[in-house]
Amino acid sequence: MGSFKGHALPGSFFYFMGLWWSTKYTLKYACKKYKKTYYLGSKTLFHRIEILEGAILIGMALTGMTGEQFIPGGPYLTLYDYKEGQWNKLLGWHHCTMYFFFGLVGVTNILCYTSRSLPASLAKLMLSNAFFVEAFIFYNHTHGRDMLDIFVHQLLVLVIIVTGLFVFIDFMRTNIILELLYSSFILLQGSWFWQVAFVLYPPSGGPAWEPMDHDNILFLTICFCWHYAFGLIVIGLNYAFINWLVKSKLKRFCPSEVGLLKNTEREQESEEEM
Amino acid sequence: MGSFKGHALPGSFFYFMGLWWSTKYTLKYACKKYKKTYYLGSKTLFHRIEILEGAILIGMALTGMTGEQFIPGGPYLTLYDYKEGQWNKLLGWHHCTMYFFFGLVGVTNILCYTSRSLPASLAKLMLSNAFFVEAFIFYNHTHGRDMLDIFVHQLLVLVIIVTGLFVFIDFMRTNIILELLYSSFILLQGSWFWQVAFVLYPPSGGPAWEPMDHDNILFLTICFCWHYAFGLIVIGLNYAFINWLVKSKLKRFCPSEVGLLKNTEREQESEEEM
Amino acid sequence: MGSFKGHALPGSFFYFMGLWWSTKYTLKYACKKYKKTYYLGSKTLFHRIEILEGAILIGMALTGMTGEQFIPGGPYLTLYDYKEGQWNKLLGWHHCTMYFFFGLVGVTNILCYTSRSLPASLAKLMLSNAFFVEAFIFYNHTHGRDMLDIFVHQLLVLVIIVTGLFVFIDFMRTNIILELLYSSFILLQGSWFWQVAFVLYPPSGGPAWEPMDHDNILFLTICFCWHYAFGLIVIGLNYAFINWLVKSKLKRFCPSEVGLLKNTEREQESEEEM
Amino acid sequence: MGSFKGHALPGSFFYFMGLWWSTKYTLKYACKKYKKTYYLGSKTLFHRIEILEGAILIGMALTGMTGEQFIPGGPYLTLYDYKEGQWNKLLGWHHCTMYFFFGLVGVTNILCYTSRSLPASLAKLMLSNAFFVEAFIFYNHTHGRDMLDIFVHQLLVLVIIVTGLFVFIDFMRTNIILELLYSSFILLQGSWFWQVAFVLYPPSGGPAWEPMDHDNILFLTICFCWHYAFGLIVIGLNYAFINWLVKSKLKRFCPSEVGLLKNTEREQESEEEM
Repeated sequence: MGSFKGHALPGSFFYFMGLWWSTKYTLKYACKKYKKTYYLGSKTLFHRIEILEGAILIGMALTGMTGEQFIPGGPYLTLYDYKEGQWNKLLGWHHCTMYFFFGLVGVTNILCYTSRSLPASLAKLMLSNAFFVEAFIFYNHTHGRDMLDIFVHQLLVLVIIVTGLFVFIDFMRTNIILELLYSSFILLQGSWFWQVAFVLYPPSGGPAWEPMDHDNILFLTICFCWHYAFGLIVIGLNYAFINWLVKSKLKRFCPSEVGLLKNTEREQESEEEM
Repeated sequence: MGSFKGHALPGSFFYFMGLWWSTKYTLKYACKKYKKTYYLGSKTLFHRIEILEGAILIGMALTGMTGEQFIPGGPYLTLYDYKEGQWNKLLGWHHCTMYFFFGLVGVTNILCYTSRSLPASLAKLMLSNAFFVEAFIFYNHTHGRDMLDIFVHQLLVLVIIVTGLFVFIDFMRTNIILELLYSSFILLQGSWFWQVAFVLYPPSGGPAWEPMDHDNILFLTICFCWHYAFGLIVIGLNYAFINWLVKSKLKRFCPSEVGLLKNTEREQESEEEM
Repeated sequence: MGSFKGHALPGSFFYFMGLWWSTKYTLKYACKKYKKTYYLGSKTLFHRIEILEGAILIGMALTGMTGEQFIPGGPYLTLYDYKEGQWNKLLGWHHCTMYFFFGLVGVTNILCYTSRSLPASLAKLMLSNAFFVEAFIFYNHTHGRDMLDIFVHQLLVLVIIVTGLFVFIDFMRTNIILELLYSSFILLQGSWFWQVAFVLYPPSGGPAWEPMDHDNILFLTICFCWHYAFGLIVIGLNYAFINWLVKSKLKRFCPSEVGLLKNTEREQESEEEM
Repeated sequence: MGSFKGHALPGSFFYFMGLWWSTKYTLKYACKKYKKTYYLGSKTLFHRIEILEGAILIGMALTGMTGEQFIPGGPYLTLYDYKEGQWNKLLGWHHCTMYFFFGLVGVTNILCYTSRSLPASLAKLMLSNAFFVEAFIFYNHTHGRDMLDIFVHQLLVLVIIVTGLFVFIDFMRTNIILELLYSSFILLQGSWFWQVAFVLYPPSGGPAWEPMDHDNILFLTICFCWHYAFGLIVIGLNYAFINWLVKSKLKRFCPSEVGLLKNTEREQESEEEM
């Protein structure tokens, strides 16, 4: 991971998953709100989507783990170098462990939606779990590095912990707003991975940013907030677009049903359900 | 913001909003309690008030952002000074970012109460969010300054985090007491901004307080508590006044309805609703 | 407070209140469980008790504040010594502020149970509040003192924060177990104040404990746990005694009603209510 | 405890309890799900199991306390060495105190399920309590030791606090997933005690690991995650096995009742209850 690509890969993964989850939850919420009658039908669809999601998560985790092990300079599955009597490229193993727990989320996702003996909310708990493990690993990852390097990773740890916390709260009390909120934090994590890649390993080949300049810290503080604001706006536009889509498609398919009065009633109900 | 005015402006904003929110929530609660029949009518009124509130928040945010950018010595919308090869007045950008997130709260407020596809509690979450972002920015704001300067800003961070936390809890479980509680913390934040202005940039033109005197820290600790006690008393008097107002006005308009027995019944009910 | 008496006084206050609250909550719970028919009657009684409690709290706070101000070497209501150009005995003012917030709890208690426009749970929130303010003050209280002095006060801050937290959780979701739990923490706080008095100002007139001996820290760590275990045992015995009292008294007054079947039914119900 | 055995003993205790609790909660959940009609019968059984569990916990605590006091080099019930004027082997007393609180959990368990005047959830609170006290003791346990020693104990404190927290959340809102989650953390604690024993006191008689080597820290970070993953897998297999057992046994005893439709209905219900 100690390269531009090593940070861009998880960044892309998280950004993609953040976008996907915000889409899924918005879609679910909009379907529930606007076409109550089709609800049972879409439920089967959503089950299938969850299983696909699990498979994609496992695929991502395997890609990440293979990449970390077999890049030039990676540990090649060797944990201890007996010749030199020391541990062998532990940072690569750190990232593998991180990917492994996200793979576990995928496995749980598939199990929860295929087997009937598992409660469905388990998948969410495992996701929260994976984030906390990730935060734990990154927290113990940067001892003895430069101020700038530590700072950008600290911000990463902060956003990961916050994400894990919100996923956990959402596990306890499912709520569309919380779901979108933690999706926005996953977007933030994704784009911040890209930012870290640009700061520490500029793709232009130039030197990294001055590691001891305090102004860089001040700038990255607000840059982090801007990334977050950008994530929020992406989620907002996505939400507006999907709502418009579901609403307009509904009109085309079953125009007779849409009366102002009826609509209001339904809305009331679905709001209470939420 | 590094001046008396720069601290007095946000102080006044927060104090005004704290007062306003405590008034709004008390009014809502009292209306619910004493004139249950007029409830539907006042609901429309409250919707309009929310939209007005959003507009005022946006206005405040724009005022603050413009002020921070175009005061003498501000960044004038330039982020990087290419001539000198360094960042340009980042502290001004910090404050702008902070104001921006409060502006976002205003936008959300308006959207939530005009569009029907957004859950109303979203506005509260965005408010909690804005406080957490503010706390994050202030936390990374005072590296390398004097002990006194850091201490007064730490207290600010403390009160902001606590406010954000209580707004979040209130988002999860709306409760009149929590609403008044976080209003009192916003009052505290407002009056503390004024206190900071007086401590660091005395308007009399005299020197700031001795930055390394430990007694100043001890005094500001209790001074912070007194500000808080003052905020609680203001909220309490406001609550008493509004309750008296709603009660007495009700008597004038519909005297026939107010019977002791009936009143008690209603109270019971509204308490359960809370 | 910098004396044996200054620590023994709040210690006694907290110990007394902890005992009293554990008694009150157990009594309430037992009454609810065993003599459901007398419940309404005892409700009026409990209201009166709450008001008396408020008066006692105000009395304690006034005693504490007067003591702190007018002991020999106290601030005598002077905040700033203009002659010497420095703050006047700020530690005394610290303690006064702490007492003031507990006085506020008493005032709220009385208002909540006399006025009908205030929700009853407000008193609990103010109590939680008073503990957090106390923790804040003690946290900023011991800068620059010895290791031992700081450590015993840190433990005090720990127990106060935990108490405040549990009172807050209990405010959100009233529960007999939580009520007894925080009572036990108040007992711990009370007995720990006494321990601090014995450690820092031995009444025998001998010297304080060796401030830099690490073994003292290790001992005080487990001593703190023993105080807690003692508090738990006191609460347990109190609970057993009151339950036995309520049960046996009930038998004497209304023996006809106590049948095994009926009793079980009631229990079931009251457990659900809890 | 400063030996291989001293760490292996609590490690085995915790691992056993973790396994047992995961088994018990899975069994309860599966029984509720698959043979609803036998529920009342199994309830009495579970009551008896709880009392047995309490007795085992007390036995473990007594074993631990006796061991800590009377091993060669233990304190032999002497707290203060008056001859040398210093505390006598305080670390042994630390461990005794820790065991004592787990003994208290056992006592509470027995009382809760024999006496009807105690709410059953009290036992869970006492368990959470015992973990927090354990964390508090371990936190104040390693002052002035080597980096490696401190790090492995910090991880222990981390897992203990997290366990205590999840037990507390489960006390507030019982949930099968949370119960299994904290069981997995107890497994982690148990196996980590074994890891600490191997790291600090290798049973081969060789020297401990190099205490200042930073690579050891990096390795132990991921090793901790692997222990956790292993614990999760153990819980998962256990869950699958017990579910299969309950399901298949049910088929043998009452084959007529098991229809696809009926089964689905029940599942629906039990999921809602959860």
